[in-house]
Amino acid sequence: MGTYLDNQFVNDGVALLHVQDLSIQRGYAVFDFFRTLNTVPLFIDDHLDRFYTSAAAMHLKLDKSRGEIKYIVQELIKREDLPEAGIRLMLTGGYSSDGYQLAEPNLIITCNPAKTTTPEDFEKGFSIITHQHQRELPHIKSINYLMAVWLQPLLKEKQVNDVLYYNKESVTEFPRCNIFIVTNENKLATPAHNMLPGITRKNVLALANKILPIEERNIPIDELTTAKEIFLTATTKKIIPIVKVNGKQVGDGKPGVYTRKLYQQFLELENFWATGKNL
Amino acid sequence: MGTYLDNQFVNDGVALLHVQDLSIQRGYAVFDFFRTLNTVPLFIDDHLDRFYTSAAAMHLKLDKSRGEIKYIVQELIKREDLPEAGIRLMLTGGYSSDGYQLAEPNLIITCNPAKTTTPEDFEKGFSIITHQHQRELPHIKSINYLMAVWLQPLLKEKQVNDVLYYNKESVTEFPRCNIFIVTNENKLATPAHNMLPGITRKNVLALANKILPIEERNIPIDELTTAKEIFLTATTKKIIPIVKVNGKQVGDGKPGVYTRKLYQQFLELENFWATGKNL
Repeated sequence: MGTYLDNQFVNDGVALLHVQDLSIQRGYAVFDFFRTLNTVPLFIDDHLDRFYTSAAAMHLKLDKSRGEIKYIVQELIKREDLPEAGIRLMLTGGYSSDGYQLAEPNLIITCNPAKTTTPEDFEKGFSIITHQHQRELPHIKSINYLMAVWLQPLLKEKQVNDVLYYNKESVTEFPRCNIFIVTNENKLATPAHNMLPGITRKNVLALANKILPIEERNIPIDELTTAKEIFLTATTKKIIPIVKVNGKQVGDGKPGVYTRKLYQQFLELENFWATGKNL
Repeated sequence: MGTYLDNQFVNDGVALLHVQDLSIQRGYAVFDFFRTLNTVPLFIDDHLDRFYTSAAAMHLKLDKSRGEIKYIVQELIKREDLPEAGIRLMLTGGYSSDGYQLAEPNLIITCNPAKTTTPEDFEKGFSIITHQHQRELPHIKSINYLMAVWLQPLLKEKQVNDVLYYNKESVTEFPRCNIFIVTNENKLATPAHNMLPGITRKNVLALANKILPIEERNIPIDELTTAKEIFLTATTKKIIPIVKVNGKQVGDGKPGVYTRKLYQQFLELENFWATGKNL
């Protein structure tokens, strides 16, 4: 793993934080994550936008410019020599003298081999369960994954791939992915509130705009049972069809036509940015 | 700061965790905190009970016995040579290979000079505001203080000492303290659900049992306006009267008679354990 920490590039063995850091003391930090393809950091400007927004919303001062962060990222990609990497930007609450008050933030940037889903994963799809939960400050990409990690033994027990959160009004998001449905009127719907605005979500909405009508709105949990197609979007997972919800098959249990079309176009979009080829 | 980490006593300079630890990656860890008085760790068995309970509830395996932890704590107290210290036990999700799945937990125990409130703090009391929020998994002492730290600039702006959470049904707790009220029928009431069961809370309930009737029940937020006395309890703060809620004075704005009586008895209880003297 390549790491930038304390204003310098460091070896993996010294990618360390003192236990007084507010991430360790109080789970207080923001992050963002993106992949590279052919050494190109995909959608980096969108991710930087969100990283700066998260930091500001959490009262964390990020004293590096976009240009400086881009330089560090490029340098890490070069040093690690990985054509496909996962880059994690992180800004913590810093070394708090009393373990509670905000301090000078610590910026950490890491570069690891990318883990992404494959076309085989797409064909297989995901089985999911639902769980009532509303993330705190959902528009901020904080490190609070308390519920997500806590639910892991349940996911193993139920032999499912992921868990979809819902609140009293509607479904919201997966711990690390957004949700889309194709309604029985062939419209694409996705929640507009109480979730993290994903970058893959944004790209999929832009692609879908040319294919079918879009509705950003509350999706009552019951609507999952009448949806023709359901899929999730995420940086690591790209697009994955949901083929089973709480044990009940979605459609014919195979990737739907719109899901497949959007997936193919999304892969083309990634390749376009990574190679400079036209769509 | 004295620290026990990686199964050994280490100097402050190497009290470090790799950034791959799940506390840093996903805010996933539990902790507990207690003070020493006259080198005696106060109510250590209650704190260890809760620490083991938190760890188990979070699927974190703690492979040290109570005797082993007590030995480490005593050794830290001796090495730091502090008559009054704050001891923090912490168990994290460990070094996760993918930054998400649970790994082998890391146990960290630190010993610092104690910060406690004084009789002058008691006389002055706290001004507080209320904020609608329900902590996730509230019975577990996790490191998730996202909302608490996030609200700090607001507390500074409002010039108040702390914030009391409430949900749709009732008030629940402060980020780090429990709440009690003396009702207008001279009963002591404190929430029973949706909050962390504090050790000072437990001791105060035991002391109060000899003084006035106790009700562990939901406290609607409106009941704060009719309460004769309001106070908070916490390991660091002991007992502090609440003299103002959202700008409105409580009673005559001074510590109430029951609050004072319980405070005095609580100090005696601490001294009893710290010196072996009878009450």
